[in-house]
Amino acid sequence: MKVPVRRRKVTVSGYRFSGVACGLKESGKRDIGLIVSDRPANAFGVFTTNRVKAAPVVLGQKRLADGRAQAVLVNSGNANAYTGRNGATVARQMTRSVARHLGIEEGLVIPSSTGRIGCPMPRDTVLAGVDAACTALSTDAFHDALDGIMTTDAFPKFAVETFKLGRREFTVAGMAKGAGMIAPDMATMLSYILTDADVTKPALRKALLAALPASFNAIVVDGDTSTNDTLLILANGAAGNAPIGVGSRGFSGFAEAVARVAKALARMIVKDGEGATKLVDVVVRGARSGPDAAKVADAIARSPLCKTAFYGGDPYAGRIVCAAGYSGAVFNPARLDVFLDDVQVVSRGEEIVGAVEKRASRVVAKAEFTVRLDLHAGRGEAMRMASDLTVDYVRFNSDYRT
Amino acid sequence: MKVPVRRRKVTVSGYRFSGVACGLKESGKRDIGLIVSDRPANAFGVFTTNRVKAAPVVLGQKRLADGRAQAVLVNSGNANAYTGRNGATVARQMTRSVARHLGIEEGLVIPSSTGRIGCPMPRDTVLAGVDAACTALSTDAFHDALDGIMTTDAFPKFAVETFKLGRREFTVAGMAKGAGMIAPDMATMLSYILTDADVTKPALRKALLAALPASFNAIVVDGDTSTNDTLLILANGAAGNAPIGVGSRGFSGFAEAVARVAKALARMIVKDGEGATKLVDVVVRGARSGPDAAKVADAIARSPLCKTAFYGGDPYAGRIVCAAGYSGAVFNPARLDVFLDDVQVVSRGEEIVGAVEKRASRVVAKAEFTVRLDLHAGRGEAMRMASDLTVDYVRFNSDYRT
Repeated sequence: MKVPVRRRKVTVSGYRFSGVACGLKESGKRDIGLIVSDRPANAFGVFTTNRVKAAPVVLGQKRLADGRAQAVLVNSGNANAYTGRNGATVARQMTRSVARHLGIEEGLVIPSSTGRIGCPMPRDTVLAGVDAACTALSTDAFHDALDGIMTTDAFPKFAVETFKLGRREFTVAGMAKGAGMIAPDMATMLSYILTDADVTKPALRKALLAALPASFNAIVVDGDTSTNDTLLILANGAAGNAPIGVGSRGFSGFAEAVARVAKALARMIVKDGEGATKLVDVVVRGARSGPDAAKVADAIARSPLCKTAFYGGDPYAGRIVCAAGYSGAVFNPARLDVFLDDVQVVSRGEEIVGAVEKRASRVVAKAEFTVRLDLHAGRGEAMRMASDLTVDYVRFNSDYRT
Repeated sequence: MKVPVRRRKVTVSGYRFSGVACGLKESGKRDIGLIVSDRPANAFGVFTTNRVKAAPVVLGQKRLADGRAQAVLVNSGNANAYTGRNGATVARQMTRSVARHLGIEEGLVIPSSTGRIGCPMPRDTVLAGVDAACTALSTDAFHDALDGIMTTDAFPKFAVETFKLGRREFTVAGMAKGAGMIAPDMATMLSYILTDADVTKPALRKALLAALPASFNAIVVDGDTSTNDTLLILANGAAGNAPIGVGSRGFSGFAEAVARVAKALARMIVKDGEGATKLVDVVVRGARSGPDAAKVADAIARSPLCKTAFYGGDPYAGRIVCAAGYSGAVFNPARLDVFLDDVQVVSRGEEIVGAVEKRASRVVAKAEFTVRLDLHAGRGEAMRMASDLTVDYVRFNSDYRT
């Protein structure tokens, strides 16, 4: 979708950023993004569930185990995935170079990579880029770093929220890249959320995990879960507040700000799904259980037949009912209700015909709308944010070699 | 894919056929297909696993429970799926009309429907068509019936095999329609296999179930399992042989003929997948178990990123490895081998670079090729036949309203 984005200035106390071009991208665009906190930050991360994990994911996951980080080093243009021992070595060398340059602990540098998978990482090229990125750090270069993490993204994805505690205001800012291989439970999706608040490790973890079901774990572009997905949150305490813990007065405000940032980034990722022209919220209610509701929402969000109908603006409820039917969820088809926004198109398992069809067509013609199902089988609920499947998606991916 | 098909004449002793146009299809093409055996036949059927089952599926499944059938009545142009009580009533009236016309038991008439789902079935239109079909029956009208069951199929799908028992020769002939909503474990797929041999009910069941894993249960176009899938086999014994049972001398010859017919029809369905330009055999070996192998094969066969790469002729092994990784199967990525036909592109989890890429490109440029994975984790095996995902698939399905 075309989403106009104004690159408003983003700063977060105690963080510096840089983005440089070192030649990993043939286009000559920025391909290194670096985020550095002035002091070690509390940190928590969520990584791809793919059994094939890129070298930086394996390394970053290990390093984050103790809940601390100070720098995030990202390269685009090469995913460093299934690149064997050499890939692991280069990932380590990249982070070592950052540590030496900045005089910080190597174990506090978290690497991420995105781009083509299965290509050897060109060691000298990327190390020269890392050097340049370390030199270029600045508090004002949030967008340079964001440029450096992007691949096929059509627009930059960032979100900034604040929350208050007493009279003090804190910032929660996030950046993300899409755009293909977007499945529930993470994707070729890199996202970094930063706050200047001092937040305890358990509180960071709790806030991020709480934000996932309605954000990054609810998005479907093509259903392919990548080898590189990474979502990190850092809290460096530069604001100098008393630490916010799970039981603290400030926790709910913080967690809500994280949830808003996560949801905003996730929606932008779906809107920028490769070739996408629509964002469809799929909401399932009344399932026997939460997992059953998720099965139905997933089936619809992934179904090529539903997604092409969304693309074509066809309010073809039959395909939605069919996908619910094969999802594996247990329900009685004769009780199923389906709505497109507020227009009911299926009542108790039968399609409503007549005048309703025109109203339904108007809904599906929109760039954003909601498909809502009630299975009348229990209290289980789930939601997904899906893109449509378009001619451009196929063109793009049958051609893609970056 | 463009598949040139010569409509060779097909007859099977003791069966008559007809195909007529009654107006269910806007195009005016044949939309009723009727197959009638001169005598009650032993029969076995496999139906969609979708929880939303079309009215004729519910009725046919019930009627086939006793393993006997004499007529198969198919309409195209309307799937009679989630059409409520009225749909069930019309399905019953259609079969009753056949029974009266031909003087056979109503319970021996098996209905099938295919076409748009969620539309009320126009009762008078279709009943007039059923009358005409009963009148038009002829031993030579196999292809008329086949026309009557087709929807968006680009070419007719049929296969004829023979098998011998002593000096006698028997026929096994099948017809099928595709073309969208093709997932493993059945699809919007109707297929009818007929033999003039006398075969016992257990032998029919065993032969058909044995044929499934390498035929109808291995095909993936878009991964959508329809509401109407039906596969029937009828054995009317018109040849007058002593019944072939599971332990009989003739059983293996019969079962092999059924398997060949089933596989031929299944391959044709994939080749005629909506917009498909390629047929890719995905073969997985060395999985921890058969179900694990099937997970990997399914993930690759369904992955939009793999399918668009197939379409583009891109030997992008990274996407194949990635899909294997998120399939849910348990294996060590560092032991994975991947071949495109005989060209090894991944060895022990690492992409082979260099000259191999040109050879791999030549493989993927072909209209038919094999993707073979060895997980080196056990003895589990599985295969899938997949189509590619093309611009025409999206065009067609974002437009489809038949």
